[in-house]
Amino acid sequence: MTKPSLGEFMASSLSRRHFLHTAGAGAASVWIPRPVKGYTGPEIRQQAVDGRLEGGISKWDLDTPCLCVDLDRLEQNLDQMQTTVTRNGIASRPHAKTHKCPAIARLQIATGSVGICTAKLSEAEVMFEHGVDQILMTTVNVTSRKIRRAMALKRWCDGFIQAVDTGANARELSEAAMAAGVVADTVVDVDPGGHRTGISPGTPALELAQLVDSLPGLRFRGMLCYDGGAQHVTGFVERRQRALSRLEAAAETASQMVRSGLDTGIFSGGGTGTYNIDHETPGLTDVQVGSYVFMDAQYLAIGGVHDKEVYSDFDPALTVLTTVLNAQYEGRATTDAGAKANTINRPWPIIAGETGMSYTAGSDEFGTIRYDSNASRTYAVGDKLELIVSHCDPVVNLYDQLYGVRGDMVEVVWQVAGRGKSV
Amino acid sequence: MTKPSLGEFMASSLSRRHFLHTAGAGAASVWIPRPVKGYTGPEIRQQAVDGRLEGGISKWDLDTPCLCVDLDRLEQNLDQMQTTVTRNGIASRPHAKTHKCPAIARLQIATGSVGICTAKLSEAEVMFEHGVDQILMTTVNVTSRKIRRAMALKRWCDGFIQAVDTGANARELSEAAMAAGVVADTVVDVDPGGHRTGISPGTPALELAQLVDSLPGLRFRGMLCYDGGAQHVTGFVERRQRALSRLEAAAETASQMVRSGLDTGIFSGGGTGTYNIDHETPGLTDVQVGSYVFMDAQYLAIGGVHDKEVYSDFDPALTVLTTVLNAQYEGRATTDAGAKANTINRPWPIIAGETGMSYTAGSDEFGTIRYDSNASRTYAVGDKLELIVSHCDPVVNLYDQLYGVRGDMVEVVWQVAGRGKSV
Repeated sequence: MTKPSLGEFMASSLSRRHFLHTAGAGAASVWIPRPVKGYTGPEIRQQAVDGRLEGGISKWDLDTPCLCVDLDRLEQNLDQMQTTVTRNGIASRPHAKTHKCPAIARLQIATGSVGICTAKLSEAEVMFEHGVDQILMTTVNVTSRKIRRAMALKRWCDGFIQAVDTGANARELSEAAMAAGVVADTVVDVDPGGHRTGISPGTPALELAQLVDSLPGLRFRGMLCYDGGAQHVTGFVERRQRALSRLEAAAETASQMVRSGLDTGIFSGGGTGTYNIDHETPGLTDVQVGSYVFMDAQYLAIGGVHDKEVYSDFDPALTVLTTVLNAQYEGRATTDAGAKANTINRPWPIIAGETGMSYTAGSDEFGTIRYDSNASRTYAVGDKLELIVSHCDPVVNLYDQLYGVRGDMVEVVWQVAGRGKSV
Repeated sequence: MTKPSLGEFMASSLSRRHFLHTAGAGAASVWIPRPVKGYTGPEIRQQAVDGRLEGGISKWDLDTPCLCVDLDRLEQNLDQMQTTVTRNGIASRPHAKTHKCPAIARLQIATGSVGICTAKLSEAEVMFEHGVDQILMTTVNVTSRKIRRAMALKRWCDGFIQAVDTGANARELSEAAMAAGVVADTVVDVDPGGHRTGISPGTPALELAQLVDSLPGLRFRGMLCYDGGAQHVTGFVERRQRALSRLEAAAETASQMVRSGLDTGIFSGGGTGTYNIDHETPGLTDVQVGSYVFMDAQYLAIGGVHDKEVYSDFDPALTVLTTVLNAQYEGRATTDAGAKANTINRPWPIIAGETGMSYTAGSDEFGTIRYDSNASRTYAVGDKLELIVSHCDPVVNLYDQLYGVRGDMVEVVWQVAGRGKSV
């Protein structure tokens, strides 16, 4: 095989980044406020007590399994996204379901995003609690208790926008808004064809928009149409075709809304896989991109415009550190990071910087390394290694904190305040 | 198909339990201290503020997704396990990696277990913090920092027992124990053949036991040998054959240890799938059973002695409650419990009490119900349903609290204090 392995890609990607920074071409890092505002976790405090903070803490000294984000790469990813969408005349409204981390949400807004999305009400609540006040919740609230909670949040958070996909729900929202003394900003969720969420485009969506516009407790703000299935289509050409065709009906609906006198100030959609495609959908205003900040093995595999094999627009920034526990059997080693540290999403995590070995996390508590005959190295008990995560969203949801590292050194510990906020 | 669905099994199992309790045959519940000691979560407090606690809270009023355990079934499972192992002349040392819940660990000990197991040091620390003081950590600690932490725990927790699987690690443990001023109780982890953890049985294990016995900082306590692969073998006869054959070498090793003057006071192994088999392994002292308290779709599928199709020795007690968000498309509905609430383990969660429909949780935020032509019902937006979890261990690890319910009413909210304690 002449194709570089993903581990080699990691290494070359790292070199490229180092070159950019060395050459002064990495102006991206200028506009990031630093040191970023974060939270110091118990481990760091303990190490501070131990006097180990004086010379700084290397990520390799952290107890494992732990979750790290490379801050240089994160900044590069933020820059790549914002530069691209700005050039294409649209905005970014990143989805916080990916990182669940208020510090990153605030970085996104500080660097140009128009707000964030959340999937769950509890995520929105925790983001607002941590200073984020432009929040589009992309999921409907359908129970009376959650609707009340949503209106309570709206009383405090003027920038909170809710989704709706049935007339009955719109009427309930309006009544609850009036009871709470607010006018609830509302977008219509339009189904791109997956029939998972949203209302059908065309007349159903248009009539719902008109209903929302007419209800005293609601303020119509536009629509969203998210086609999750398009994001991971392999091959840029195939992905572009799918993304554009699946949003065609929604775009026509948006146009109908405008013609009928409704302003679709928001037409939100798209994601990390289609961020450089979605501006071609007429009327689309912003992309709900999530994974781009971190990247993962799933997205690396879809290929991009420039590289058919590896989606290299963004740098893999999120890793799980793990320690080898057992190395006494031929051809394999066992680590301390299994399914509870990695999920069982496929492809399996990628061992960063190595070739000729694979990693599986099918066991709850243990990971397994298997060596090919051409393995770049073998591990001894106590050795640590770094894994590019399989699928960033559910992996982040396993951790209470995220170590922000620059090079090998821990710069900040961010609270994953939205972890477990699935309610 | 004449075979009952798992949903129907749930219903019949419930009836059987109700019969037992009504008939006074359920003496099991007598010895459970109740009300059990638990923790009141923020939701319950909020509902108390709302005045809703007065008449009690129904689980159907909880915001979803949320995790519930049926306390009648939990008690029944505790009783079934303890009765069986006692009859078979061995003990139970339940694995807390399953429930991560100190309240359940204390229930297990209160009802006859000789202690608990933990997979991770941070689990052991949190269990001790919550009043559990007989803890066998089944995983080795190999870094100097974790070894120091383990010895620090040992200083406070006299009943803490550590595992070792190399001579080098034994020497490190001994030195750290002496530095901490403790004698560390230690068991040798013996590999049943999976080569995941442990040392090879026979001479390697025997020599390691002798080394442990000779080191000044360590106290030899015996061995463990856990064959995870045996637990989910389908069919009781096949499972029994696998379990006994895989532990043969370990049993011979235990015998060698005794003959060489070492007392294997502990020979721990087995699990929920083999709890009624492991006593046939000569010398085995206790089973590290975990899932029996909750059960899950994976274990239901393995079949038992009495029922070849369904492993009915234990009652499915752990469920995720979820709410229907979208019901406007033919043949399907979308819920609020996806991979972040269920994991993506297979088989998929089972909708309790219903037939003719399936549930998938492949999407991070949403679950999908698909109806067959003979579906027992269909759902409307806002309806709630109950899922028997796919694989209990990693599902519990997604939740901060566990609602203990009796019938439909919430009786207690337990803190999942070990959630995320993978370090």
